[in-house]
Amino acid sequence: MTISFGHSPEVLEIVRRTISFVEDVALPVEEFYAGSAHHLPEEMRLEIQSEAKVAGIFAPHVGVEYGGLGLGMCDRAPVFEAAGYSLFGPLALNCAAPDEGNMHLLEQVASDQQKEEFLGPLASGTSRSCFAMTEPAPGAGSDPTALLTRAERGDDGWVINGHKWFITGAHDADFAIVMARTSGEPGSRGGATMFLVPTDTVGFVHRRDIDTLDESMYGGHSELIFDNLEVPDNAVLGEVDKGFDYAQVRLGPARMTHCMRWLGTARRAADLAADRAATRKAFGGRLGDLGMIQHLIADNEIDIEAARALTLKACWDLDNGLPSAQSTSIAKTFVAEAVNRVVDRSLQICGALGVSGDIALSRLYREVRPFRIYDGPSETHRWAIARRVIRTIDKARQ
Amino acid sequence: MTISFGHSPEVLEIVRRTISFVEDVALPVEEFYAGSAHHLPEEMRLEIQSEAKVAGIFAPHVGVEYGGLGLGMCDRAPVFEAAGYSLFGPLALNCAAPDEGNMHLLEQVASDQQKEEFLGPLASGTSRSCFAMTEPAPGAGSDPTALLTRAERGDDGWVINGHKWFITGAHDADFAIVMARTSGEPGSRGGATMFLVPTDTVGFVHRRDIDTLDESMYGGHSELIFDNLEVPDNAVLGEVDKGFDYAQVRLGPARMTHCMRWLGTARRAADLAADRAATRKAFGGRLGDLGMIQHLIADNEIDIEAARALTLKACWDLDNGLPSAQSTSIAKTFVAEAVNRVVDRSLQICGALGVSGDIALSRLYREVRPFRIYDGPSETHRWAIARRVIRTIDKARQ
Amino acid sequence: MTISFGHSPEVLEIVRRTISFVEDVALPVEEFYAGSAHHLPEEMRLEIQSEAKVAGIFAPHVGVEYGGLGLGMCDRAPVFEAAGYSLFGPLALNCAAPDEGNMHLLEQVASDQQKEEFLGPLASGTSRSCFAMTEPAPGAGSDPTALLTRAERGDDGWVINGHKWFITGAHDADFAIVMARTSGEPGSRGGATMFLVPTDTVGFVHRRDIDTLDESMYGGHSELIFDNLEVPDNAVLGEVDKGFDYAQVRLGPARMTHCMRWLGTARRAADLAADRAATRKAFGGRLGDLGMIQHLIADNEIDIEAARALTLKACWDLDNGLPSAQSTSIAKTFVAEAVNRVVDRSLQICGALGVSGDIALSRLYREVRPFRIYDGPSETHRWAIARRVIRTIDKARQ
Amino acid sequence: MTISFGHSPEVLEIVRRTISFVEDVALPVEEFYAGSAHHLPEEMRLEIQSEAKVAGIFAPHVGVEYGGLGLGMCDRAPVFEAAGYSLFGPLALNCAAPDEGNMHLLEQVASDQQKEEFLGPLASGTSRSCFAMTEPAPGAGSDPTALLTRAERGDDGWVINGHKWFITGAHDADFAIVMARTSGEPGSRGGATMFLVPTDTVGFVHRRDIDTLDESMYGGHSELIFDNLEVPDNAVLGEVDKGFDYAQVRLGPARMTHCMRWLGTARRAADLAADRAATRKAFGGRLGDLGMIQHLIADNEIDIEAARALTLKACWDLDNGLPSAQSTSIAKTFVAEAVNRVVDRSLQICGALGVSGDIALSRLYREVRPFRIYDGPSETHRWAIARRVIRTIDKARQ
Repeated sequence: MTISFGHSPEVLEIVRRTISFVEDVALPVEEFYAGSAHHLPEEMRLEIQSEAKVAGIFAPHVGVEYGGLGLGMCDRAPVFEAAGYSLFGPLALNCAAPDEGNMHLLEQVASDQQKEEFLGPLASGTSRSCFAMTEPAPGAGSDPTALLTRAERGDDGWVINGHKWFITGAHDADFAIVMARTSGEPGSRGGATMFLVPTDTVGFVHRRDIDTLDESMYGGHSELIFDNLEVPDNAVLGEVDKGFDYAQVRLGPARMTHCMRWLGTARRAADLAADRAATRKAFGGRLGDLGMIQHLIADNEIDIEAARALTLKACWDLDNGLPSAQSTSIAKTFVAEAVNRVVDRSLQICGALGVSGDIALSRLYREVRPFRIYDGPSETHRWAIARRVIRTIDKARQ
Repeated sequence: MTISFGHSPEVLEIVRRTISFVEDVALPVEEFYAGSAHHLPEEMRLEIQSEAKVAGIFAPHVGVEYGGLGLGMCDRAPVFEAAGYSLFGPLALNCAAPDEGNMHLLEQVASDQQKEEFLGPLASGTSRSCFAMTEPAPGAGSDPTALLTRAERGDDGWVINGHKWFITGAHDADFAIVMARTSGEPGSRGGATMFLVPTDTVGFVHRRDIDTLDESMYGGHSELIFDNLEVPDNAVLGEVDKGFDYAQVRLGPARMTHCMRWLGTARRAADLAADRAATRKAFGGRLGDLGMIQHLIADNEIDIEAARALTLKACWDLDNGLPSAQSTSIAKTFVAEAVNRVVDRSLQICGALGVSGDIALSRLYREVRPFRIYDGPSETHRWAIARRVIRTIDKARQ
Repeated sequence: MTISFGHSPEVLEIVRRTISFVEDVALPVEEFYAGSAHHLPEEMRLEIQSEAKVAGIFAPHVGVEYGGLGLGMCDRAPVFEAAGYSLFGPLALNCAAPDEGNMHLLEQVASDQQKEEFLGPLASGTSRSCFAMTEPAPGAGSDPTALLTRAERGDDGWVINGHKWFITGAHDADFAIVMARTSGEPGSRGGATMFLVPTDTVGFVHRRDIDTLDESMYGGHSELIFDNLEVPDNAVLGEVDKGFDYAQVRLGPARMTHCMRWLGTARRAADLAADRAATRKAFGGRLGDLGMIQHLIADNEIDIEAARALTLKACWDLDNGLPSAQSTSIAKTFVAEAVNRVVDRSLQICGALGVSGDIALSRLYREVRPFRIYDGPSETHRWAIARRVIRTIDKARQ
Repeated sequence: MTISFGHSPEVLEIVRRTISFVEDVALPVEEFYAGSAHHLPEEMRLEIQSEAKVAGIFAPHVGVEYGGLGLGMCDRAPVFEAAGYSLFGPLALNCAAPDEGNMHLLEQVASDQQKEEFLGPLASGTSRSCFAMTEPAPGAGSDPTALLTRAERGDDGWVINGHKWFITGAHDADFAIVMARTSGEPGSRGGATMFLVPTDTVGFVHRRDIDTLDESMYGGHSELIFDNLEVPDNAVLGEVDKGFDYAQVRLGPARMTHCMRWLGTARRAADLAADRAATRKAFGGRLGDLGMIQHLIADNEIDIEAARALTLKACWDLDNGLPSAQSTSIAKTFVAEAVNRVVDRSLQICGALGVSGDIALSRLYREVRPFRIYDGPSETHRWAIARRVIRTIDKARQ
């Protein structure tokens, strides 16, 4: 239990391989498709995943029994960061959202049969998934208790009706983990249940792909309608009415893996800008000789180092089974804002070039913005953080 | 000389008409083209300009002798802001960059013949122009003395060679105001000269349209090559070697009209967000009942009010012939950053909806970012602001 | 009704005289007492006020019938700012809080007899006053409806009981304007009444001078107890139960005069820092040649210019009888925060010297901090600003 | 080498004892002297140090051979933070600046004889020391190469002449570590040498105690004159001309121990504010129910968690002999600014109470401000951080 920021030689070797892979494979493909996974053909996804397998870096977070590298949270942090250096890196390693979080959830909660049917293909990249929780107003968003989608017991299983949106990866996904209310009323917590639903089930309607500021998530963000969607009993993931608890199981680690990946994006932006500052001549010297540019560069380094340290701290809590709601909320809030600051500063350093498509910064600028909203807006996290502080005081006073 | 923030009834009437026009004409067209002026057909430009003429709000900044409304800087401020409420409003009123700034420059500097040939058609919307000053590294950008494009006396006029980029509006423009070095060497100030050049002149090469984060400027941002571009003597705008001075003539007011227009964008973003906050239910109340959302709303109002006051102050200086380099630099820097903050907060208030294309915020988010770089990055302005402070002290000490 | 930021020659002449006076009289006295008005003897106050009278700048805000200069809000803005350049300037001009706000209130609301008895001596500097409104928790603070101090009709007037704190200027004041509840219960608004009470009345107990971060307000901040304080009927200021309305009459302009004075403090801090930057050698040049220092200097100028423009805008609203609750809230919030930023940056520029007592910055640093709390904390103002936005939307929807 | 944020049971036990000690001993004494170590009598210092010895927490950073607890950087972090919860805690544990840094330096560099004469008494609290490096303008400050104080070889040792200021702890210190130029000229780096000098040596003149914003450092900050100060050869600490290198030996760890102590101050401020928010009623609820207050509370937690994580990261580098210039610069810059933000927000949450002396916040507000300047202003650190980034790129390009 000594403090350590070091990583084992084994993990560092995976990091090195990931860095090479991103340089050689992921970045060129990203460049070709201008960072838009919406336009990436299925075959290209399979090809880069196949190359990641050859490189020995595929599915770093998945248990070895499912073909992964079996890395814990702290160990996967530098690997995911290295993958996130390209917008397409996590997809290639099969550790992108939402599949990565779904694999984690299935490993924790699914039955053996469900693991075989859903987790296996997902872990190997054969199938893709989505996590159907959020709903348009006035449904479940920052406030999950507003859940409107409802599952009712039918003759032979369950009948689900509801409306979902911003369901990442839903386009052409093979199955969805659907969150539906099974008890209580919207506004109260009540009980929710998770269901494993193949997307070709009758009543599972893909209404549209939502046009969004970001474009790098494979499968985009979709709007779905569940119109008398019938699913059998064994579609229930875990137990009935435990959906909100399972959502927590999924969300804590998912928050951190988001942080790791976007940290890689921030590092890339900062590198692009520093490189520009080191070479661009201006005002009789280099950009990087100017104090105001140095200020921006230094703040990038500070933000990245702090984001990384907070991420590791929260991962440490998760790996050690310690309470992690506060530390993951803190890390997610800080990292999301820090990543945005870093990309913004980097674009500013590069000036008109940064605005142009000649360098990746304007693309990264669009991609990172939603992270301050996805996985809980900063405001929701801050509310939760403060409430825990106040509750601790309340308890101490009792 | 009493202090006043009021506007005359005549100006307020123009503002009212502009507000109606934007609501009825500009916003629907903007929506149809998703805010991208790059895809707006020429006929559509002419149609909305024709409707603005009917509404009596066309060319508010242009002298009445050229068919404009003849408004000074302070008077045009609320009109341009109202126009800027839509990304297409300024285009419709023919007061968008770069034509608007070019008209100002031509009114100040051009010969009668040049006015007839270039200003008249430009003011009426018959022709379009661009201002060819900035160059790719290591040429003229934030540091204008780095100017590389060179004009040399030929047998019968001038021969211009150079490379320009980020020339706004250049695609299909009818003529360009070209800035070229006519004495001195790059790195020293030396002398520059402005030339009026029809874009169909031999040697005027449109190399490409640059892909940019923003898309709302008609004619986009282009890269140009001047390859032994021959122009006659009467192509010289004003006097030889006075180009840097004329650039100042153009830049001061152009800075402020940018501020006015983007202020309208900020107002729109804030309105969209406030409307959402007033209606969206969450956590048992409305979004707008939550303190953190109120914080964002209040900061939007503060930023807009301060941006508007600074803009008016600088316009007052310009209208009264007072020194305005400092006040326009201050206003430009603050407004560009305030506008970005407002749009960012507004998007955050709207959450996932803000990220989507279902509301204009994600579009506005992309459009306003470059304003912190165009017309002088904030860093360059801050450097100039500080230098003036120090120089004033130096002088007082002598 | 044309827009103007100019001031009349008469006002500018008063400004010039104030600048000289502050340089010659106020700053040396401030320096001698290290900025602490808590240790300034009564005779010294009378002496500098006497010199201000000689200089023709005494009581610029007071009507000429009471010996003042009769300046409106916009006109007094540059005069108060010039006075605020020294922490002792406003005291010398008799335009410091709380007397200045009390004079305004008395001019608006007091009876002729009350004006003769209280306003006359106050305007001439013969007497001093305080405004006894705020109470310790859980009484009236940011939330005025929490008012606990109660006045009840007695046989022959009123009997007041209550507990006040942070009553600025109360030490050795001659009279107080006391705010007490005359109907309703704490938590509801109900009705409050203002009373004019000589401080030597039986039952008016000065419990202590509160030790505070700031020390420049003459008479400090006191805690008062009203222990069966009996006052006659003619002690009522204006009408019974209208106290909350009168508080608004006082608060709008008082907010702005605070802004004007503290703006002078910010200007002084920025000047001290710029002077240091222009002369201090470091790293082979001057401090002011370093980009990061230039950044701080430029931001000071931006903050000051914006603060001044917002102050003038709100003053314009007040002078013209326009709705001003929003514009004064916006100005107060921005100015209070801007002034703090300016002083903080200025101290930073001066480094260890700034921390020391060898230059005024560490003193100014302490003095300006409470302005973000006094006269309504920024949070209360932001809440009010946002609520007005939402209410406007609600009304438009009805 | 697995990542860990955990501390050993032994360290946690020391932390627990320190928390109790601070609560029972340090805070009451701090309160009695209103946080001013300038007014703390010598006997009181010895008494609280004696109690810290009894508690088994004295000199946690010192080797066991000198009576300390022998904790490395990571292990001392939580102990110092716990001590820093009171402004007097570090003094009581004998781990306050500058003695703590001087002990570290002496342990690393001093000869056995010097250790016996100087380190022993210092470690036990019998003597006190100062570190005489910084000079008034235009001497050594942020730019150490400006060093003006000069030591020249005399007949029998060295003769030192110079002028120092902001020498912390110098008042009544027993000895000084004096930094003087022994080769080169001001502006170049040249060579500096450190000398161990008893303060009662002839020519060692204590000119004055500087009045400063902060008052919690025992012995204050002094101005010193070295007037033909003669010292023997064995006064040289380490080797001649290696002073700049030794300064680095001292500065890295000293930066981090500052961070640890001030982090305790931030934690205390945040606790005071959270406690207030949990209990103060306002607007029909508690302060802590208001979103804007929750925002402030949450940001305090985020800042503290990030500051702590960065501190541990840099300590990890130091403990493992890794390059630490970058990580300690990053940590120092972030922590200094974060601590200031936390105290500022906490004061704001407490409103008028926070401004008053009834709670420690206004005191802490003054104390933490200089930390953004002491030990290198943020600007100097940012410059160094950026320069390292650029140099790394330069090297990679060669």
